[in-house]
Amino acid sequence: MKSNLLSNIYNPADLRTLSEAQLPEIAQELRQFIIDVVSVKEGHLGASLGVIELTIALHYVFNTPEDLLVWDVGHQAYGHKILTERREIFHTNRQIGGISGFPKRSESIYDTFGVGHSSTSISAALGMAIASNLKGDFNKQHIAVIGDASIASGMAFEGLNHAGVTDANLLVILNDNAIGIDPSVGALKKYLTAVKEGKNPKKNNMIKSLNFDYSGPIDGHDLPTLIKELNRLKNIKGPKFLHIVTTKGKGLQQAEENQVKYHAPGKFDASTGEIILKSEENLPPKFQDVFGLTILDLAKKNEKIVGITPAMPSGSSLKFMMDEIPERAFDVGIAEQHAVTLAAGMATQGMIVYCNIYSTFLQRAYDQVIHDVALQNLPVIFCLDRAGLVGEDGATHHGIFDIAYLRTIPNLIIYAPIDEIALQNILFTAQLGLNHPIAIRYPRGRGVLPNWEVENFGQYEKINIGQASTLKSGTKTAVLSTGTIGNNVIFAIEELSNPETIAHYDFPFIKPLDIKLLHDIFSSFERIITIEDGAISGGFGTAILEFSAANNYKNNIEILGIPDVFIEHGTVSQLQQLCKIDVKSLVNLFSNATK
Amino acid sequence: MKSNLLSNIYNPADLRTLSEAQLPEIAQELRQFIIDVVSVKEGHLGASLGVIELTIALHYVFNTPEDLLVWDVGHQAYGHKILTERREIFHTNRQIGGISGFPKRSESIYDTFGVGHSSTSISAALGMAIASNLKGDFNKQHIAVIGDASIASGMAFEGLNHAGVTDANLLVILNDNAIGIDPSVGALKKYLTAVKEGKNPKKNNMIKSLNFDYSGPIDGHDLPTLIKELNRLKNIKGPKFLHIVTTKGKGLQQAEENQVKYHAPGKFDASTGEIILKSEENLPPKFQDVFGLTILDLAKKNEKIVGITPAMPSGSSLKFMMDEIPERAFDVGIAEQHAVTLAAGMATQGMIVYCNIYSTFLQRAYDQVIHDVALQNLPVIFCLDRAGLVGEDGATHHGIFDIAYLRTIPNLIIYAPIDEIALQNILFTAQLGLNHPIAIRYPRGRGVLPNWEVENFGQYEKINIGQASTLKSGTKTAVLSTGTIGNNVIFAIEELSNPETIAHYDFPFIKPLDIKLLHDIFSSFERIITIEDGAISGGFGTAILEFSAANNYKNNIEILGIPDVFIEHGTVSQLQQLCKIDVKSLVNLFSNATK
Repeated sequence: MKSNLLSNIYNPADLRTLSEAQLPEIAQELRQFIIDVVSVKEGHLGASLGVIELTIALHYVFNTPEDLLVWDVGHQAYGHKILTERREIFHTNRQIGGISGFPKRSESIYDTFGVGHSSTSISAALGMAIASNLKGDFNKQHIAVIGDASIASGMAFEGLNHAGVTDANLLVILNDNAIGIDPSVGALKKYLTAVKEGKNPKKNNMIKSLNFDYSGPIDGHDLPTLIKELNRLKNIKGPKFLHIVTTKGKGLQQAEENQVKYHAPGKFDASTGEIILKSEENLPPKFQDVFGLTILDLAKKNEKIVGITPAMPSGSSLKFMMDEIPERAFDVGIAEQHAVTLAAGMATQGMIVYCNIYSTFLQRAYDQVIHDVALQNLPVIFCLDRAGLVGEDGATHHGIFDIAYLRTIPNLIIYAPIDEIALQNILFTAQLGLNHPIAIRYPRGRGVLPNWEVENFGQYEKINIGQASTLKSGTKTAVLSTGTIGNNVIFAIEELSNPETIAHYDFPFIKPLDIKLLHDIFSSFERIITIEDGAISGGFGTAILEFSAANNYKNNIEILGIPDVFIEHGTVSQLQQLCKIDVKSLVNLFSNATK
Repeated sequence: MKSNLLSNIYNPADLRTLSEAQLPEIAQELRQFIIDVVSVKEGHLGASLGVIELTIALHYVFNTPEDLLVWDVGHQAYGHKILTERREIFHTNRQIGGISGFPKRSESIYDTFGVGHSSTSISAALGMAIASNLKGDFNKQHIAVIGDASIASGMAFEGLNHAGVTDANLLVILNDNAIGIDPSVGALKKYLTAVKEGKNPKKNNMIKSLNFDYSGPIDGHDLPTLIKELNRLKNIKGPKFLHIVTTKGKGLQQAEENQVKYHAPGKFDASTGEIILKSEENLPPKFQDVFGLTILDLAKKNEKIVGITPAMPSGSSLKFMMDEIPERAFDVGIAEQHAVTLAAGMATQGMIVYCNIYSTFLQRAYDQVIHDVALQNLPVIFCLDRAGLVGEDGATHHGIFDIAYLRTIPNLIIYAPIDEIALQNILFTAQLGLNHPIAIRYPRGRGVLPNWEVENFGQYEKINIGQASTLKSGTKTAVLSTGTIGNNVIFAIEELSNPETIAHYDFPFIKPLDIKLLHDIFSSFERIITIEDGAISGGFGTAILEFSAANNYKNNIEILGIPDVFIEHGTVSQLQQLCKIDVKSLVNLFSNATK
């Protein structure tokens, strides 16, 4: 099965020189190429394996890059990248300086629209299609490929609702594999399943009711059928909708059978498919598991506790509660707006609602946080996972704006735990009743306490709202940190030759600030350094500036955090270095600070 | 037609003592009561007149406030307020200290969920319904009343998509009058129209495809039919959907015939319905009209210019362009998320896109601004109308968070014009090509230049990006203002006995700041006052603090703006007084500042 077809394809023009009969061979090679690279370099696997045939068919039938192809989310675009001039650099995927794990305009002319967050493709492609009409280019094709999890998000509906009354040359392809990262949910999923099973296919077609030319469902792994249907649709003007059915992970048995695990499996054996397990001995727990274990424990003891996740049961570890107390743990699908207002509705009835949303995705529900929760001062508990730099997912996924965009909202408490114990205790404290909403932000990845589960889990202590603490006293410079980046400060101080000069304060409460301690600090230290794993502009350090100005202090204040640029992908530690908030940069800074 | 039925009704329990035969009389009285009060006190008229019968039927059939009723948006809730213990204070509607123009939890136990922004009702009511099930209260009813414009917004779809797979006792009532503030648009509207006209009623029922028990359409002004149907639905468990057809403005001929104008007509003659025109002579133009006239003028000269509004053609005055160049001006319905990403898609194809969204509603598209526009550095031109305090619409509608939530986004330019000329010129400058997205924020209401249209309109001058200006030099204190609040500073200085002490600088660019001028100011003045019509926390003044800290200045900086609380309704000048940014407060402050 060693062929050379793929190695001769630099871009889709090359692909189009092949005969249709050769395409299954390309599919086989492309699938293997992805498996070979991802098994070693890691990344998202299942989604791309599922659309190999579709990817080939699209680039074969349509005249990319003249015809404009938008991939929703972009987890599935590896095959696309390989066929569009990036085969030879595909091994740099998600590495610093390498190609992005998502389509990205600055990377390739074939990447027509940068993606990462879901459900943007229809709106973007429709905008392109309307622009083409306005420019008099009525033959250009505009294609949005969107999964069944993404199309159930409100934004996608808004796009369909508009597209259906235009004459735009828009082809929406629903890649229906019944799963996003976790299995899809909701009434639309149920409806699509019925359609696929041949039930109800004639009546109540939601897509037709939105004025689309609907076709399908067809087998998305059947290349001849795909190509025939795409060729047919290419010649139909106006909005069109093709429903294809695929299998996530197609072609790798384990990936087909364990679709959640093989969404992004880490390293695995390319020939057997077996995941290469890393030793987890003596590793601190993931913060998501601290959340997952703690909410389950608290919910067992308090019947009012409810958990909500918009489509991230595995990623948030709310799955632990969903498995044991399914009636009080809700996966609402990719529907952040709904998740937040649903939480607000529950809170009006006295429920204690933990609404777990990745920091970057809470941007989708910003209005609901303001208008439905904070304005009514409903005590919803927002758990913002993946806050701060997230690493390889890159610019679309860093959770670095949350401090700034939340800090301006009245009534809201904002807390960033420094470690697993602090996270556990704020989760405990929140359900005692705060009379305010709270946002708890914590990062992707692991904490710092390998024995947390054995030694600390379940031993709750109530936290005093607004209280900061002195981690270390010092003589010359006060360092104020918020959240887990405080551990970098701790490690840096340990490496100093004169650590006695640096005082370190942990400010888990970004709002309200510990005003009393701040007065002490500002009265005692001429030089103050703040540090946060978030955007400097408007963030925690800025809150300290506001305190300083309001109280007429004249201290020197230096703010460390994420500068005012979009940070690309790389490991978290590489990106921390870029932003000069890694341990080594802090050691240098503190050493100079003590001179 | 002088009856006493209504005057004996304090709350719905009283209503339920009446016979069904008496209800039409109540409807007549309630309609007249609203007309009498709103004709004098102003407010939203058409929406409430359209749901008089529904309001009566709901409170008659259901056991409010035990059964939970959520009004979407809330423009239509006047009848509800009058029937629920607020008849005698209804004349205080939208006045400072009076009742809110929208349902509000803190105002009444009958207002189960605060609203103002659209499309939240299904999520909120579903949250309540799920909570009831969890509490074992399986008989409680939960009703969301939502209009056909609101249900087309993505968030409503997310709520329906979730509700359809629950066993929640949720009744969604679609109040279909084919209009929001402006006429409804989109494929769903087209579908609903077909259903109403008896076309296509059997197949392709979108609501049924979402697993709802669908009934209707029925005449929403027919009380016996409404009551019968609500009684039937009351006894059906699970999610239910009732489609009713109403006429906005029902019962007042002019309001029925001019639904856009009578949405909120201002004062009118209660007996004839004629609107009492205010003299507009010598008044400065509304900022929305400066936008509307300018974009039309620019679009006539530049074929690449496109305008987008999510459901605010009248309110934004994009209508001027929609009337003259319909092919390049788009009302996409209540779909802010889609509007922004559609703009981004168009911008990738070289179109020059003005995306006009009220400041408070851009909160709905925050992620799209970050992820689809700013991250890709697409030069979309955001025009944020109703920025700052908006007055009588109150806490849900003030556009006061935008500076803070936008300032943290890389690549984005933020501009706040001080007057009509500045707005016109930045709109002109933006289409010359900025290589960055820009957000232009301007307030509700009128400017300060009565002769703008005659003397200035169309005489464009290019603005230098990032440049601030000295409006007035002075000796002691520097006042830095951004946006139209700068006019309060100008007026205040005029009233000072020693105006020579105050220097006044106009900083229309909140981002990027005019660093050179700031260095001059910080070197020349010990005391600096900043002022903005936006939240202090994270806003323009904070940006000045960041500059100061980064450059080690030690000046005294005082920040004026909106404090960290939600500001309720009242006139703009009353609310400015509350926030101490009105002219009189500034006179006092500046007088003290000069001592």
